[in-house]
Amino acid sequence: MAPDLDTIVSLAKRRGFVFPSSEIYGGLAGAWDYGPFGSELKYNIEHLWWKRFVSGREDMYGINSSILMNPKVWESAGHVQGFGDPLMTCANCKNSFRADEYGDGAPALCSFCGADTKSLSTPRVFNTMFATHVGVSKDEEHITYLRPETAQGMFVNFKNILDSLHPKLPFGMAQIGKAFRNEIAPRDFLFRAREFGQMEIEYFVKEAEWEKWFEYWRGEMVGWIEEIGISKNRFHEREVSDTDRAHYSKRTIDFDYDFPFGRKELYGLAYRGDYDLRKHETGSGADMRFTDPETGEKFVPHVIEPTFGVDRTVLAILCEAYAEEGSGEEKRVVLHFKPKLAPVKIAVFPLLRNKPELVTGAREVFQALKGMFPSTLWDDNGNIGKRYRRQDELGTPYCVTFDFESIEDKAVTVRDRDTMEQERIKVEELPAYLSEKF
Amino acid sequence: MAPDLDTIVSLAKRRGFVFPSSEIYGGLAGAWDYGPFGSELKYNIEHLWWKRFVSGREDMYGINSSILMNPKVWESAGHVQGFGDPLMTCANCKNSFRADEYGDGAPALCSFCGADTKSLSTPRVFNTMFATHVGVSKDEEHITYLRPETAQGMFVNFKNILDSLHPKLPFGMAQIGKAFRNEIAPRDFLFRAREFGQMEIEYFVKEAEWEKWFEYWRGEMVGWIEEIGISKNRFHEREVSDTDRAHYSKRTIDFDYDFPFGRKELYGLAYRGDYDLRKHETGSGADMRFTDPETGEKFVPHVIEPTFGVDRTVLAILCEAYAEEGSGEEKRVVLHFKPKLAPVKIAVFPLLRNKPELVTGAREVFQALKGMFPSTLWDDNGNIGKRYRRQDELGTPYCVTFDFESIEDKAVTVRDRDTMEQERIKVEELPAYLSEKF
Repeated sequence: MAPDLDTIVSLAKRRGFVFPSSEIYGGLAGAWDYGPFGSELKYNIEHLWWKRFVSGREDMYGINSSILMNPKVWESAGHVQGFGDPLMTCANCKNSFRADEYGDGAPALCSFCGADTKSLSTPRVFNTMFATHVGVSKDEEHITYLRPETAQGMFVNFKNILDSLHPKLPFGMAQIGKAFRNEIAPRDFLFRAREFGQMEIEYFVKEAEWEKWFEYWRGEMVGWIEEIGISKNRFHEREVSDTDRAHYSKRTIDFDYDFPFGRKELYGLAYRGDYDLRKHETGSGADMRFTDPETGEKFVPHVIEPTFGVDRTVLAILCEAYAEEGSGEEKRVVLHFKPKLAPVKIAVFPLLRNKPELVTGAREVFQALKGMFPSTLWDDNGNIGKRYRRQDELGTPYCVTFDFESIEDKAVTVRDRDTMEQERIKVEELPAYLSEKF
Repeated sequence: MAPDLDTIVSLAKRRGFVFPSSEIYGGLAGAWDYGPFGSELKYNIEHLWWKRFVSGREDMYGINSSILMNPKVWESAGHVQGFGDPLMTCANCKNSFRADEYGDGAPALCSFCGADTKSLSTPRVFNTMFATHVGVSKDEEHITYLRPETAQGMFVNFKNILDSLHPKLPFGMAQIGKAFRNEIAPRDFLFRAREFGQMEIEYFVKEAEWEKWFEYWRGEMVGWIEEIGISKNRFHEREVSDTDRAHYSKRTIDFDYDFPFGRKELYGLAYRGDYDLRKHETGSGADMRFTDPETGEKFVPHVIEPTFGVDRTVLAILCEAYAEEGSGEEKRVVLHFKPKLAPVKIAVFPLLRNKPELVTGAREVFQALKGMFPSTLWDDNGNIGKRYRRQDELGTPYCVTFDFESIEDKAVTVRDRDTMEQERIKVEELPAYLSEKF
């Protein structure tokens, strides 16, 4: 059964995964800070993604483009004119809200104060790009934007990649980075934030082959979703209809997840044609054509875009991993992370913290493991039951206890998070035993 | 001999390390995009830093705080009032420049048009924080800033770490992330950019122990500088004088590097007292005291702050690694990266690309190595001499060539970037041979 969102938010804060940004000052709506365990979880996701989709492949060029870009990028791409949401304001209570959250019909009453339709403004497009001034002058010329997507960083570097790396078609460009949208109503924890991470790919193909590569990336995205431990019955492919699709896209699939607050978009896969490269070709005058090394033919490639939200992935994994098990004294909350994603891989305990011989023995085991698995944690706080419950809430796959017997038999107890079974393992065999598990 | 900056900028662009941001639109001053090899180099630096200073330690809590924070953070910390540079404007040519770049004396003539002192305004403080509006209203209340440093993200989460992780003193908080400063005169490639990465630590100690921990971190920073391959004769510790130090710091050391454009700050180490936590205690009303678990004593810890610029590290490493060697036909440009930092670890070649038996053999070797070292590159472009020169410019430590003999003797030629010596290694021994090198 899926946990409710408040349970996840509360666990995330209590256990050092995610805190509200600037919390001591009342926070900032739509901004979140990752604590120690959230940071490790996020990095594990990002590293796995980078290895799977970028460094582990031959046809992918990873980049890291800047958040502040020349404003002409956003003019050419159409964002200055059209990147926004329909905003309505209530004359009675002065609150603003998104008009499109009422489906096709207009709202009858203000959702804040209940004032009737007459109090509501007609919807206007609110541009959700954050603007800022670059340079010492405050005039309009120097306005630019925090990027609302990482995608354009790939398109404007397309020519740089052609010129410096001479790739063959098909090839992709990819990056992981932050993007910013001034959401009218940020909400649902990490789901709709104003500052968020994206892992994005632009995969360039010949137009005639777009359907083949679209299917290929659809499969790759399903493979990734399985790799990170999202269960099949909670994710759903949704063909985006003609009316909801961007005008330049001939096909888009959303990958939805059953979040506690409903079935919502986790990832997206879009065929964008040559729309973006053409727009930048017109806007900048740069030649965006690829030259076929065999035929000499020059053409602007078409693009398939698989997009993955970083923070939505973190949230989906937290929801997916969360479980309340057992009852009464045996009740526990546990995060069943896939071991490779778990922020803490191993916790090492001395059975009792006030027995120097146990502490010394446990420290030796700890030091040896820490050298091999940096994400090994020392824990000597409270009794063994409390430690297991704490480590379960962190999603630590294995707890290693050094007890009185350990001094004699040179072995430790290894407890498995999921089965709660305990095995006695020789200290000298421990590195091999745990290496095999990860 | 140090290369000049233009040589580095040109190599960085030609070989896919760093491109000017939004280059097809004329760029954006002070913003840079990392290409495929620059991204890998930067990630290698960041991962090494994180392992060394965060995940590999027991006393460090890594975080990832947001770039947009509640504006009160910057009011309390003093940035809204005082984070800026002295700006002078020339009435004749309308250009602006930093007044403090003329040392103690005021400039006699405009550095742009040569107009005399009468044309120059008196210096005013120009706040270098980028401002933006959050939310739908455009009034002053909703202005916030792009963080100009990652440090405050640690201070405002100090209480969250105390409450969720119950650390012992001393302990540190650390993060890697982007920061933004609206520099009056961005310049010197990655050195003075408007968007840049920081790797920062706030290490909390008892006031009485600050000198001990300051010395400890000084040693740690020197250790890091050695680990990444910066030679001792190019980096210099500089004690920052009373007049140049921030008023709240009793001691600051800058670690300078001999860049092509002069001896400039690479890293900094500052003792900041309890200034930051006190400011936030006053500003937010939160209790910033640490409770000693043994004595029950409550006090606000003091802080030692080691700061490492990400992009300055990349630039220093590029400068340090760069060499022009040999002469005539034997002349080469080579980047002598430490192998663990090299963006490409191994390149695999078939001696000739038009001999299927060589390609097939080389592909087998390549696939096996790629599984072990994702940063393995396939290269079959041009003749072997051209490939060596290209890989030298990428700083690839080892090139592996599959030739006609390989089919018979099941061995390949491994060429060492630095010595240019070639060794014949059995294919089956290759993984072990290369593993040992890295």
